[in-house]
Amino acid sequence: MSALPDHQTPNGYSPAAPIAPVAATRRPSAGEAARTLAHHGARGALSTIAVEPAGYPYGSVAPYALLGDGSPIVFISTLAEHTSNLTRDHRASLLITDPHPIGDPMDNGRLTLVADAAPLRGSHEIAVAREIFAIRHPDAAGYITFGDFACWVLRVVALRWIGGFGRMAWCTPSDYADAEPDPTAPVAPAAVEHLNADHADALLAAARAFTGHPDATAARATRLDRYGIELTIATPRGQATGRAGFEPRVDDPAGVRAAAVELTRRARERS
Amino acid sequence: MSALPDHQTPNGYSPAAPIAPVAATRRPSAGEAARTLAHHGARGALSTIAVEPAGYPYGSVAPYALLGDGSPIVFISTLAEHTSNLTRDHRASLLITDPHPIGDPMDNGRLTLVADAAPLRGSHEIAVAREIFAIRHPDAAGYITFGDFACWVLRVVALRWIGGFGRMAWCTPSDYADAEPDPTAPVAPAAVEHLNADHADALLAAARAFTGHPDATAARATRLDRYGIELTIATPRGQATGRAGFEPRVDDPAGVRAAAVELTRRARERS
Repeated sequence: MSALPDHQTPNGYSPAAPIAPVAATRRPSAGEAARTLAHHGARGALSTIAVEPAGYPYGSVAPYALLGDGSPIVFISTLAEHTSNLTRDHRASLLITDPHPIGDPMDNGRLTLVADAAPLRGSHEIAVAREIFAIRHPDAAGYITFGDFACWVLRVVALRWIGGFGRMAWCTPSDYADAEPDPTAPVAPAAVEHLNADHADALLAAARAFTGHPDATAARATRLDRYGIELTIATPRGQATGRAGFEPRVDDPAGVRAAAVELTRRARERS
Repeated sequence: MSALPDHQTPNGYSPAAPIAPVAATRRPSAGEAARTLAHHGARGALSTIAVEPAGYPYGSVAPYALLGDGSPIVFISTLAEHTSNLTRDHRASLLITDPHPIGDPMDNGRLTLVADAAPLRGSHEIAVAREIFAIRHPDAAGYITFGDFACWVLRVVALRWIGGFGRMAWCTPSDYADAEPDPTAPVAPAAVEHLNADHADALLAAARAFTGHPDATAARATRLDRYGIELTIATPRGQATGRAGFEPRVDDPAGVRAAAVELTRRARERS
């Protein structure tokens, strides 16, 4: 996996550089970020190669669920275009957008999972797939056993992850298959909102202690993951960005609060 | 344009047949429904043919706006995969999902707009495109003039509209280009909710008067467009569906209330 250089951010600003040591913090890898998106999502845009108009890429909406190795499965009807398309040409991709976005939709995560699609054979495999799918899509229990619906598995051949403006990377199928989804993703938007609304002082302390901006005058959380909080920081030298890390990482959505309290305690200890 | 036969609905129920004359009502054509989705949407899933992995269909998120004839325009960066892809192969599609869904996401509208993509040439055309785009995406003003961003137009070659379970059709580019978007789409979800919460009696009167179910015992609105209201109706013979039409059609979002009042007046007059 390799990250492209950032290109210009939409508002064209260059952040102020740190003037003090920056505390080392872990960030989710592209594989983790990709697996997190796929794990918490439920519907993607399935791209196939059209039978008609022949050869055009064709997008359709597809509810999906993940097998244990992260391979998406879909239940699709023989009456639908994408099924005719996949029957003729197995090449596909599934675009998944962040189901828990924060702020500008274009500054949120999305993932293109390029895959070879194949119908699942074998009654045991199909029974397991139905169970996995019905957990993610309880309303689908009514149709996934219909005669015109079949389960297809998307075997991942490449993944392109975009985290938001200027944050993007290819990751390998094994990076993705081996990664653990971030359990905090569903609660991150509410946690960010709560921190900004009620704990501006704690965010400022964290910005001063950890991000190399001891002269910060204000800080806002912009996103949050199991390893820490991304911050936008006001300084007399201009706007900056930074990151404050949780210790240890958060393993449960309910653990975000305690991790933020502990981070604040460490920040105040250092000041 | 031709509608496919309905396939089985997810819950497998067969609606009760009308037992009295059904009042004729207009429905949006597939072209109108498609144009309505495209008009009110703002971001789609752009499918292109990948340079790498070569030949695979590749989905990405693309904010778009519409030219006067309904052709989508996108501003895309040379740093992005989809731009490399389109430069190599002009074939594309844009998948647009209903920005104002009601209920089950899979029972809402979406549109696949199959297109030939071409970069806009000519400084006047580009200036006009920037203006149109910035109206729909005010935040984009900061990047659409960047050197690495170019405007591409998607010339529609085919359209596949899916209205929800069992409602789908191909429509021609001219059906789409000539259609007027439904101005009530953005207020439809709130109107449906309000009718169900506060005007169950009016919906029941409409169901009895217009849908062929004079023995209806309850009715709920399930969707609404400029020409009328879709209803799910309880009868002693089982559940039914029906439609009650506005007269005249609604030409302004603010006109939905008056149209519903007028529809109720006509329903009560007939009972």
